Amino acid sequence: MKVVSILSGGLDSTVLTYKLVDEYGNDNVSALTFNYGQRHNIEIENAIKTCEKLGIAHKIIDISFLGEIIAPVSALSSTTEVEMPTIEDVLGDPQPPTYVPYRNMILNAIGFSFAESVGAEKIFSGLQVHDEYSYWDTTWDFINNMNSVSQLNRFHKITLEAPFADMSKKEEIDIGKDLNVPFEDTWTCYRGEVGNGACGTCPSCSERIMNFAKAGLKDPIKYETDIDWDKLLGELA
Amino acid sequence: MKVVSILSGGLDSTVLTYKLVDEYGNDNVSALTFNYGQRHNIEIENAIKTCEKLGIAHKIIDISFLGEIIAPVSALSSTTEVEMPTIEDVLGDPQPPTYVPYRNMILNAIGFSFAESVGAEKIFSGLQVHDEYSYWDTTWDFINNMNSVSQLNRFHKITLEAPFADMSKKEEIDIGKDLNVPFEDTWTCYRGEVGNGACGTCPSCSERIMNFAKAGLKDPIKYETDIDWDKLLGELA
Repeated sequence: MKVVSILSGGLDSTVLTYKLVDEYGNDNVSALTFNYGQRHNIEIENAIKTCEKLGIAHKIIDISFLGEIIAPVSALSSTTEVEMPTIEDVLGDPQPPTYVPYRNMILNAIGFSFAESVGAEKIFSGLQVHDEYSYWDTTWDFINNMNSVSQLNRFHKITLEAPFADMSKKEEIDIGKDLNVPFEDTWTCYRGEVGNGACGTCPSCSERIMNFAKAGLKDPIKYETDIDWDKLLGELA
Repeated sequence: MKVVSILSGGLDSTVLTYKLVDEYGNDNVSALTFNYGQRHNIEIENAIKTCEKLGIAHKIIDISFLGEIIAPVSALSSTTEVEMPTIEDVLGDPQPPTYVPYRNMILNAIGFSFAESVGAEKIFSGLQVHDEYSYWDTTWDFINNMNSVSQLNRFHKITLEAPFADMSKKEEIDIGKDLNVPFEDTWTCYRGEVGNGACGTCPSCSERIMNFAKAGLKDPIKYETDIDWDKLLGELA
């Protein structure tokens, strides 16, 4: 069976892509990466690296129009003037400023289209419904309703699968550890500039650091702030 | 109330845009046009003309990636080698070669995103479920399931409306006639090159000609083939 992995180059989707290659074989996995003018360009470089290491087909789709559409409302576009929130701002906020209207609907619809074009039966997303930033488009309701649309397709009933939906990031990191995922090829920081490393303080960095510590691992990527791994591992692992 | 009209520059969406301006006022209507490297570039020129005449905001979104994705499977991309079908090929065919995988899911998802960004509550599509080319993504099931996804949005439950869904093209032309739509600003021909006019023989041209005749109107656009309007109007009007 052919499958498509929606690969951002972040932690979730990279671990997922390794898992899919392990299950389906590298000839049957195609990766789809979106370039939408977000701050995270290092993620795309990482996605390319991952696909090269795994020997899988890789398509990068330019959806920079999304940056143009969302500029007035979201903190993720590079042209926006909305302030980047800290984790304190977004925890418990049902729709934080990093929200991009209908992003996952657009991305997964393109994923379905790509899957039909390459003859794949499933698209896999690394989305997690346990995400602290509880966007409406990262829920089981969202996944199920997207599949209801896709099941109307008369000849190619492609399904959207989200095997990490109910996992914690710690459990994902455990899976990645078992599959020898080179975690240094993943990027999570919202700020997206490599410079002296990931910022270590944005919501994504904070969550990543906490979950590496819970999994008993020191994150191999470089941070611009000092992370006291011994203390974190002592408290959380 | 603010609304978005998905305007291709074809007959359906142009009549719909005039209708929306009539109902909501030109300050409250924004048009969204997709440029996806299809053969129909004259449609975009027409969409621009329509928005200028109506004095409404207009956004053109580049989704040329879609042409790249669909090249192996569809006759609508400019780079494809699939043969363009005639109306005989597609009538009764549940999924003709002009099918673009998940096109309406992608387009409407982008429409929802744009609508949320500009503060609109509804997006309007000129799609018709009575279309002879019965794509799975031009059905009431499709519209309803797309709305089920969108109703999950916590703060902006934008709806997809398709007021022409159950109308014949003849009824649409009647509406356009009442609203003084300049039909010469609409383009339907699949081949998309202006040259000596619309081809007059592709499925879209055939359907257009037949429905203008039923509405008792001679189509004002130029055709490269001779259309015997007197005979057609005598038989169909």
